[in-house]
Amino acid sequence: MSKRKIAVVITARPSYSRVKTVLKAIKNHPALELQLIVAASALLDRYGSAVNYIEKDGFTIDAKVFNVLEGQNLTAAAKTTGIGILELSTVFDNLKPDVVVTVADRFETMATAIAASYMNIPLAHIQGGEVTGNIDEKVRHAITKLADYHFVASESARERVIKLGENPEMVFNTGCPSIDIASEISTVKGLNFNPYQKYGGVGAEPDLSNGYLVVMQHPVTTEYQNSRRHIEETLKAINQLNMPTLWFWPNVDAGADGTTTGIRAFREYHSLEKVHFFKNMEGVDFLVLLNSAKALIGNSSVGIRECAYLGVPVINIGSRQNKRDRGYNVIDVDYNKEEIITAIQTILKNGKAEVSDVYGGGNSGTVIAELLEKLPLQFHKTITY
Amino acid sequence: MSKRKIAVVITARPSYSRVKTVLKAIKNHPALELQLIVAASALLDRYGSAVNYIEKDGFTIDAKVFNVLEGQNLTAAAKTTGIGILELSTVFDNLKPDVVVTVADRFETMATAIAASYMNIPLAHIQGGEVTGNIDEKVRHAITKLADYHFVASESARERVIKLGENPEMVFNTGCPSIDIASEISTVKGLNFNPYQKYGGVGAEPDLSNGYLVVMQHPVTTEYQNSRRHIEETLKAINQLNMPTLWFWPNVDAGADGTTTGIRAFREYHSLEKVHFFKNMEGVDFLVLLNSAKALIGNSSVGIRECAYLGVPVINIGSRQNKRDRGYNVIDVDYNKEEIITAIQTILKNGKAEVSDVYGGGNSGTVIAELLEKLPLQFHKTITY
Amino acid sequence: MSKRKIAVVITARPSYSRVKTVLKAIKNHPALELQLIVAASALLDRYGSAVNYIEKDGFTIDAKVFNVLEGQNLTAAAKTTGIGILELSTVFDNLKPDVVVTVADRFETMATAIAASYMNIPLAHIQGGEVTGNIDEKVRHAITKLADYHFVASESARERVIKLGENPEMVFNTGCPSIDIASEISTVKGLNFNPYQKYGGVGAEPDLSNGYLVVMQHPVTTEYQNSRRHIEETLKAINQLNMPTLWFWPNVDAGADGTTTGIRAFREYHSLEKVHFFKNMEGVDFLVLLNSAKALIGNSSVGIRECAYLGVPVINIGSRQNKRDRGYNVIDVDYNKEEIITAIQTILKNGKAEVSDVYGGGNSGTVIAELLEKLPLQFHKTITY
Amino acid sequence: MSKRKIAVVITARPSYSRVKTVLKAIKNHPALELQLIVAASALLDRYGSAVNYIEKDGFTIDAKVFNVLEGQNLTAAAKTTGIGILELSTVFDNLKPDVVVTVADRFETMATAIAASYMNIPLAHIQGGEVTGNIDEKVRHAITKLADYHFVASESARERVIKLGENPEMVFNTGCPSIDIASEISTVKGLNFNPYQKYGGVGAEPDLSNGYLVVMQHPVTTEYQNSRRHIEETLKAINQLNMPTLWFWPNVDAGADGTTTGIRAFREYHSLEKVHFFKNMEGVDFLVLLNSAKALIGNSSVGIRECAYLGVPVINIGSRQNKRDRGYNVIDVDYNKEEIITAIQTILKNGKAEVSDVYGGGNSGTVIAELLEKLPLQFHKTITY
Repeated sequence: MSKRKIAVVITARPSYSRVKTVLKAIKNHPALELQLIVAASALLDRYGSAVNYIEKDGFTIDAKVFNVLEGQNLTAAAKTTGIGILELSTVFDNLKPDVVVTVADRFETMATAIAASYMNIPLAHIQGGEVTGNIDEKVRHAITKLADYHFVASESARERVIKLGENPEMVFNTGCPSIDIASEISTVKGLNFNPYQKYGGVGAEPDLSNGYLVVMQHPVTTEYQNSRRHIEETLKAINQLNMPTLWFWPNVDAGADGTTTGIRAFREYHSLEKVHFFKNMEGVDFLVLLNSAKALIGNSSVGIRECAYLGVPVINIGSRQNKRDRGYNVIDVDYNKEEIITAIQTILKNGKAEVSDVYGGGNSGTVIAELLEKLPLQFHKTITY
Repeated sequence: MSKRKIAVVITARPSYSRVKTVLKAIKNHPALELQLIVAASALLDRYGSAVNYIEKDGFTIDAKVFNVLEGQNLTAAAKTTGIGILELSTVFDNLKPDVVVTVADRFETMATAIAASYMNIPLAHIQGGEVTGNIDEKVRHAITKLADYHFVASESARERVIKLGENPEMVFNTGCPSIDIASEISTVKGLNFNPYQKYGGVGAEPDLSNGYLVVMQHPVTTEYQNSRRHIEETLKAINQLNMPTLWFWPNVDAGADGTTTGIRAFREYHSLEKVHFFKNMEGVDFLVLLNSAKALIGNSSVGIRECAYLGVPVINIGSRQNKRDRGYNVIDVDYNKEEIITAIQTILKNGKAEVSDVYGGGNSGTVIAELLEKLPLQFHKTITY
Repeated sequence: MSKRKIAVVITARPSYSRVKTVLKAIKNHPALELQLIVAASALLDRYGSAVNYIEKDGFTIDAKVFNVLEGQNLTAAAKTTGIGILELSTVFDNLKPDVVVTVADRFETMATAIAASYMNIPLAHIQGGEVTGNIDEKVRHAITKLADYHFVASESARERVIKLGENPEMVFNTGCPSIDIASEISTVKGLNFNPYQKYGGVGAEPDLSNGYLVVMQHPVTTEYQNSRRHIEETLKAINQLNMPTLWFWPNVDAGADGTTTGIRAFREYHSLEKVHFFKNMEGVDFLVLLNSAKALIGNSSVGIRECAYLGVPVINIGSRQNKRDRGYNVIDVDYNKEEIITAIQTILKNGKAEVSDVYGGGNSGTVIAELLEKLPLQFHKTITY
Repeated sequence: MSKRKIAVVITARPSYSRVKTVLKAIKNHPALELQLIVAASALLDRYGSAVNYIEKDGFTIDAKVFNVLEGQNLTAAAKTTGIGILELSTVFDNLKPDVVVTVADRFETMATAIAASYMNIPLAHIQGGEVTGNIDEKVRHAITKLADYHFVASESARERVIKLGENPEMVFNTGCPSIDIASEISTVKGLNFNPYQKYGGVGAEPDLSNGYLVVMQHPVTTEYQNSRRHIEETLKAINQLNMPTLWFWPNVDAGADGTTTGIRAFREYHSLEKVHFFKNMEGVDFLVLLNSAKALIGNSSVGIRECAYLGVPVINIGSRQNKRDRGYNVIDVDYNKEEIITAIQTILKNGKAEVSDVYGGGNSGTVIAELLEKLPLQFHKTITY
């Protein structure tokens, strides 16, 4: 019997990291044939050339599609999607996949979703049903309405997709395949690299052998004007605790922002004598670092997802992760120095949190591959209400 | 103060007919400026060149976009949409509308929805929230998730859009603008044209002065194999009643089909001596014809919508209109000769039905134009659950 | 050593017929690998689905590209070319050919030429350098300026390409591969099919066993208004000669035209009692028919090319073939009944013409494949003056 | 009478500079209407946003077309051209120009040429017929074969276009519109700005009041490996002469190159005590600087064109300008220190050269606008041989 052909379209480097274990599981499944299509920014140097990592990891690329229009503006985003549809439909026409898989909610993933659904190819969507309160939501939920199978990362996402009128029998809480990576590193004992040497950074270089805190706090898009005040509460709490702390700069979603300014200004007037600042770190190293930390403080999604699985205690500050499921590892606090300090003290007393598989048990890749083999091939559906 | 610029994209002739009164109302509104964009099959001769009608009706076209890829297959549908995005984004970039309006659920309307939403232009969707059980649903509900304002045609559509997680304050039951046309002809007394002369057709030419039935019954896509049996029940009922009857051939969605074969075969063995068959009829004439009919028999959506407003009794056969709202004019029956005959006899006894505005009161165009002037300009939203 | 990869792009059914022997020769060459790309109207049913013939002939298609925009107008031609570039560049990027081959001068072949030359892939052009006095010339000569190797069909074409500033060492008079087909049928003795039975048509069915004339005369685009008068001279000549004659209707380039009207009107008033009219005929059968004919009368290019090779006498009327090379088989005459009759009488006296290889000796396919193996791979050039 | 609509498509900042006086002349001509279309890199920030200069100069932009595909590789160049055709054909369809004007030979100008010629819009080409020995030639000469009117910059260009088979009556030596700018500054006496202050740069700051040399020497693409040796000859000559010298860094066509390395290495071991190095300078300032220089040394095209008009003596080194017409101002020398020194000494003795209008008399813009008004509107042509 011929294998089921599963086309996965990768359009960006983070999406590749997220679904790498899915790709492996499909590739290794005896009844599946992986058709790997790399497109958009995943092909471009200035976004980190995911294509090189993909090939280094041993995958064969079946088709490449250059479709990013220059301009980095909104018009370019729309046009990139249009070109994507034009080209991916030719690719699908030539590769004739049985199922197409699309990942998450970047604007250009809509091209994959439209080409597949319009061509009556069953469409699987990984990581639908989540809520982020920003522009990605339009894309994410619209793709849900085009997709035939939904591989969601948590129970609340599953419920949301069902509320959107999807047939519950086609909505699967497979966990998030990014947890599979956390699972792989969970057995690493202690830090297996020197972060100061490997990643540079600025500030003190405190001794980490008796434990340390990690901080990662991003500005919240819709609370922009308050982000300086928000970060100051955290800075004051960390300063007062005076424990070894590794602090990661926020991403730069909204350009120059209050968070960055807040940190810079605070450093001028306070010694922060046990705090080291990093710009970035490779994904696997970052997870190893977190796994040995006493706590993660801030509002990163990694605290909600990967740390739930690893049992790393998290002080989650503010509203950014509001509508996401929690494991047993999270204490939610407001932007408030006293609340933050109290929460850290609680954690220091309790130690590691109970492990939770709320975002998956580390085998999402395999589970998804199994489903891709077994699910009935279908592309007709109707809303359930 | 400068006028709000409202771009409406028309991609097909039926869509134009449906929203003509909306276009008029925008054009005549002192605070709105209409930007009319004609694209896709609305520009092509073999689909009836809507563009000619549009110009004859006195509208100025601001941009034309040829984007239909040849092939009339699924790949072509996807590519047509891709080209549409590519070109409409240029058009929007040059015209700079304040709001973009898209109509219903044809596959290529997705291009309008994506170009507008990706460019952060508030998007209004006319006729979302309906259920048809076929492939259009994916498009229709995905557009709902991209749109900021929803101008739906009935109460159940309104409820469905809200269930899809849309903010109820942005969902408006404006009625269907196609009812506006029904409203315009509702005062015409009797037939103001001779249908045999004007539209030809075949079969008997019964005297219509003492009343007549109209039949329009389409095959149901998902019940394809049964469509011959289905049409035969109707044919037997009409044959037995032996009243003046005007019968419209079904559309040809699924190619050569059981409905057509059933009619042809029945005609060979039965005289159907008071039945005349038409291929098609202009929309306004068809409504005038219906308005004077004793009943419409079949499964056309016009029986559910326009006839509700006109109070024309309808025998609705089978499942095709299952999830649509009803006025007071509909008797639902199964594919069954006896049920059909009984229902017609009931109707002949009762006469015209009570008029209903379940699909609008004939002023949708104006209502929509008013909303387009008053609604806050916004393009950020989040799901309500 | 790895084989040279030769990508040939076929965009229309006539182009396929013309280069079929080239494709075979590449496929069978031990040092070449054929990459066959089928695009544009060659994929569409209403243009005769060349794709079906290609597969029936045993070729494997490496990529299909749907790029014909609907409209059959000038805008659509431009856009079809644009989409072609967009998609063919992806195909070339994935197939990585060493040489790309493009055929003749249809508007969409420009897409092949631009994609290949812009991507620094050496480009071979078959059938450049000819003159036709219409819009195709712009395309044909522009492609010559983009191409690196020129496989022309005659000596005058070779000279013209060199005059266009191309390096003479890269211009090869390979003959026209369409002659290869003529070569294959040249050994068939007599008619091996009954044309009346196989192709229908109208008019008399004269006995063909003692010889017959063939007429094929097209309107000349730039002499449109005169085409009725032109055809009448031919009709009068044939009528007066009263020999068995097989007449082929003209193509319909410029819609309803004087040629057609002229023939229809003449038939009403004259018996033409030995003339049969055909609409069309398969290429191979047509060549067999010509090969047994006493003469071909008219202005078809087949009289100049294939008949030169077959030695079939031709009365070439008017200016349509003005700038093309001649074999030994052609008598040129004006639109004049007397000149036509005199020329036919000369031919009937002389019999078959001397065979000429002015358009090739029947081995173009092989010659071109040899060149494709041996030519240096290069894409830089400069004008010679 | 309605004005003739002249659409000019600007795709890059240098093209805009070159034809600015043409745009002005069209705009001011009473019988012409300018339709200005800005596309490709002319819209992008990282290429200097020509669009801002265009608007500052008082032009109204009729349409903007974003069509640059990211990647800065060959595939992207092809695709950019494909998207350009797709979009420009819509723009032409909506603007309905009587003539389209395209400039020079950048790859994406082919999109303008194809869209216009395929849509039967008469196409004017500015600056055809030149020879550069690199990849641009394919584009330039192919556009010549698509264009209907040729506005060339010199007599040899005119002859070349005619040799390419174009009708001599449609080939006009209008001069180069870039000379019009030289004409405007030719009356400026001396330097009207301080180049050290305004443009920075490195090296000595010699007194310029008693005259100075200017050097601008680019690597020659096809002689890449020799470029370090080439530049060293010039460096030695300038070092030995020890006169005030303003040296401009080469462009970076071929990435890190021998020219740059050669200059850097030479500076380490030699004082070059009267040499100042600049990265770049605004066009008008650069011309003013040249106009007061004793000589320009190197291989820039400005020495051949603008300096011919200004009478600035030029030592032209090597092969880069080989096939271009000369005014009275050029001494051609080999890459040889002694030849360079001798030539400079000759020039210093002779002073300013005789002014030449070999590239135009400074009124190209007006001449071209006049032609655009008077030329017959036609798009059919045939090769002249």
